Amino acid sequence: MNGKRAKLIGVGVGPGDPELITVKGMKAIQSADVIVYHETETHNSNALRIAKRWISEKAHLQPLTYPVTVQSDSRSDLYREKLNQFYNNSYQTIDLYLKNNKTVVILAEGDPLFYSSFMYLYDLLGKSYPTEIIPGISSIFGAASVLQVPLCYRNQSFTILSGVLEKQALVEKLRNGDAFAIMKVGRNLSKIKEALEITGLTERALYIERATMDEQKIIPILEADGEKSPYFSLVLIPGIKHKIKT
Amino acid sequence: MNGKRAKLIGVGVGPGDPELITVKGMKAIQSADVIVYHETETHNSNALRIAKRWISEKAHLQPLTYPVTVQSDSRSDLYREKLNQFYNNSYQTIDLYLKNNKTVVILAEGDPLFYSSFMYLYDLLGKSYPTEIIPGISSIFGAASVLQVPLCYRNQSFTILSGVLEKQALVEKLRNGDAFAIMKVGRNLSKIKEALEITGLTERALYIERATMDEQKIIPILEADGEKSPYFSLVLIPGIKHKIKT
Repeated sequence: MNGKRAKLIGVGVGPGDPELITVKGMKAIQSADVIVYHETETHNSNALRIAKRWISEKAHLQPLTYPVTVQSDSRSDLYREKLNQFYNNSYQTIDLYLKNNKTVVILAEGDPLFYSSFMYLYDLLGKSYPTEIIPGISSIFGAASVLQVPLCYRNQSFTILSGVLEKQALVEKLRNGDAFAIMKVGRNLSKIKEALEITGLTERALYIERATMDEQKIIPILEADGEKSPYFSLVLIPGIKHKIKT
Repeated sequence: MNGKRAKLIGVGVGPGDPELITVKGMKAIQSADVIVYHETETHNSNALRIAKRWISEKAHLQPLTYPVTVQSDSRSDLYREKLNQFYNNSYQTIDLYLKNNKTVVILAEGDPLFYSSFMYLYDLLGKSYPTEIIPGISSIFGAASVLQVPLCYRNQSFTILSGVLEKQALVEKLRNGDAFAIMKVGRNLSKIKEALEITGLTERALYIERATMDEQKIIPILEADGEKSPYFSLVLIPGIKHKIKT
């Protein structure tokens, strides 16, 4: 016993550029005993790739391997059962580190409280141990920064939508707002393009893949291929510009 | 002539905690020739306060002083004229530094492309000089991190609203979404509370003042005083929790 106390820290590593992590997040990673990250059977952890340069040689790396990929049918009972089992196993793995008074950092792409797997682990563990959450730059703001587009002016609303929504739901949402970001694009791109066409928003829409990462691509949305769009792609519909008279 | 080239950099300094700036933003501030920030006649710059520890002693500080405060009537012609004049003067001030090949950092609270004064300066200057925009943590994610509430799960939508909107507009928006943040609360708090009551969202709503700053206050929304709520206050309505079976 060295008197050290267990601590759980969720760190948002930002959208991709390793320097778009916060100073606070960087320090938490540098001093962690254990670094936890999510991966799938077919894909390495993107969060780990982003955080890598800040991780101490002494830190223990703990992957959590999803039993399913984004291609799985999320409505099936089998999928749900596998996923629940995965979270329970993850919980037990992390709980053991914390019982041994380790400082455990869980990496999250973007922000840890925004559509993140960290949230489920936090819901299972956060009440049992001292917990800190360090926010991160969402891919939305990363994308806006490289596209150099103001997202919204004055009293415009800004709505973030999941591209997984049905076309009609997307259309209704897009009719009731001023500016938008659509996440989880990937295989949903063709449907999203149809919803933009129906709502007359195609001309204002911007498409970007892997914003701020080395492999970043900015493509006119009409030229973006619905079959090849990666999970880390995003559609932005900035608010109508409010101009200063000059 | 030292061969140095002019550069304009918009840096998001985050919600308040100086360590919630990105590593990239910190470095840009440390190496800037000129640091530009907004203040009013009655209030010092909050962005400057956040960034202060990263600013080099050699850097030149350039305030831009708003001729009006949030109490001004934003619909009057005089207000608009004064504001346009302010942006034009600001443009000329910054343009002169850039003409002299300086690296000019403009500080923005939160993110530079999200309801920020930087956007107007960028619209006036961004096309004339090499420009970089470094995103920052919005107060929304800062608030969620200290409240430790997941903002949205799976395919829930997330809508960000301005508290300046009329009550009926707020009610309509709050009826059409899953999770929300309401910014620009301040004097609009009483009206926002009425809109939450009408839409049955009061129980889910969280209120926070100056999230991540030293003066941060978390107050049950029903106890928050509509007359005293500061501009840097925020209402969060997180999405309904998606539970993992255990």
